[in-house]
Amino acid sequence: METFFSFLAKRVDDCSSLLCVGLDPHPSDLPAPTADAARTFCLRLIEATAPYAAAFKPNAAFFEIYGPEGWAVLKEVIAAIRGQSDRLGSMIPVILDAKRGDIASSADGYARSAFETLGAHAITLSPYLGRDSIDPFLAYKEKGVFLLCKTSNSSAGDLQDLKLATIPGSPAAALRLYEYVAQLAQTWNTGNNLGLVVGATQPESLARVRSIAPDLWILAPGVGAQGGDLVTALHAGLRRDGKGMLIPVARGISRAENPAKAAAELRDDIINIQYNRKH
Amino acid sequence: METFFSFLAKRVDDCSSLLCVGLDPHPSDLPAPTADAARTFCLRLIEATAPYAAAFKPNAAFFEIYGPEGWAVLKEVIAAIRGQSDRLGSMIPVILDAKRGDIASSADGYARSAFETLGAHAITLSPYLGRDSIDPFLAYKEKGVFLLCKTSNSSAGDLQDLKLATIPGSPAAALRLYEYVAQLAQTWNTGNNLGLVVGATQPESLARVRSIAPDLWILAPGVGAQGGDLVTALHAGLRRDGKGMLIPVARGISRAENPAKAAAELRDDIINIQYNRKH
Repeated sequence: METFFSFLAKRVDDCSSLLCVGLDPHPSDLPAPTADAARTFCLRLIEATAPYAAAFKPNAAFFEIYGPEGWAVLKEVIAAIRGQSDRLGSMIPVILDAKRGDIASSADGYARSAFETLGAHAITLSPYLGRDSIDPFLAYKEKGVFLLCKTSNSSAGDLQDLKLATIPGSPAAALRLYEYVAQLAQTWNTGNNLGLVVGATQPESLARVRSIAPDLWILAPGVGAQGGDLVTALHAGLRRDGKGMLIPVARGISRAENPAKAAAELRDDIINIQYNRKH
Repeated sequence: METFFSFLAKRVDDCSSLLCVGLDPHPSDLPAPTADAARTFCLRLIEATAPYAAAFKPNAAFFEIYGPEGWAVLKEVIAAIRGQSDRLGSMIPVILDAKRGDIASSADGYARSAFETLGAHAITLSPYLGRDSIDPFLAYKEKGVFLLCKTSNSSAGDLQDLKLATIPGSPAAALRLYEYVAQLAQTWNTGNNLGLVVGATQPESLARVRSIAPDLWILAPGVGAQGGDLVTALHAGLRRDGKGMLIPVARGISRAENPAKAAAELRDDIINIQYNRKH
């Protein structure tokens, strides 16, 4: 059976890329703050960058701004990625960056929304509510989840860096909260459908997470606009096989004069870093 | 200036109620799993229960299932609450149960979506990303935030119950994670617009949170369907002034033969418990 991460790995091989193109139609980047302008922004970006994209990552927030019209555009954008995939003959995964986190039937509802109604292949989720808030998503065997672990914002440490007490026999003993989340994810990933979000702005955290969860895929936002360095991040977070990381870039591509060229260069930069790391 | 909690307190006085009517159109409770059926379900429930509702709490998940059509219904449902408020001559707050949590411009987007596009008065948020993920919502001075603290699900303890290390001088010393979140919220609530979500299924946690955050409003889901006991929860969580708690009930009302009667009875039960506690 294909799982999300076997699907992603196939796409990564097809396009030799670990680049994840972020679809973040910031209102300030649009000629007007409307759903129509967000659609045009995304469709152009998809067309320009699809050959170099290991995945696309639309952030739900920028569509929700426009209410029902924004959701209609989000659905169209995901359909357009399917269209580009067909054109290229290689399916490009869509990671819905929604950072949801709810329980029981509400979690079911969000899973149906992301995976069935919108047609996304994976979603980002918050770990704060624990295992049973993740299970309804993992129940979709061929879909994927990226669990927030260590985020790229400046207040990330408020909770994520807290040191846990040493409790004899506890699996959480003497870890920081984000390290424990990585440990949980490593044990919960029995279906090859659970990865982690770790900010590229925090190379030490990336290295810690990689040592705790040697096999998991890491989505590492923060390169470029947020100040994360690509070389440092990849050295800290790549798996031994030189894969296992996705580098989402949004503004660094969408604001470039030539987004296709910017995406191609980022793809090539990553390839060079992967190569140098191996040799 | 009116803040969310002064607005809520006024409504609580107007209707002598701490009942928060949950608008959760579970697909299995609808004649058909469609946005139209969700609309009918919610509009009937609003009409029947408005006189007894201190607030309404639609859960975004049950609307997102239907994509753009579901979001259109969510908008209509919130507008219908305004309509009932006008009819009653007393504004009823709408708490959007969305459990969002994102950073920077994405958090801005979610705030605009909830407060401007949809017209909700408050929102539930996850604390996992820290202070700067909450600030864009608190920047809406007249709107409110309920921060997830201790949730009512069975895996809530996976993260929320973790004991933090004793670090001399640290404000987080030797607390459980959810207790530290309560402490953060108490200090962050400089604008009278931040409350907490603490499950009614966990009376010990309610009592702990009440002692850490003596003034904050607590949204306490889990009475009824999830097994929380109303008397125990209110005794553990009410403020000294006999207020400071909202009791959300969804299925206990929507599945009753006569939802108006069920809501009136719950309102009255709460009044009696408040009275007995004082005397």
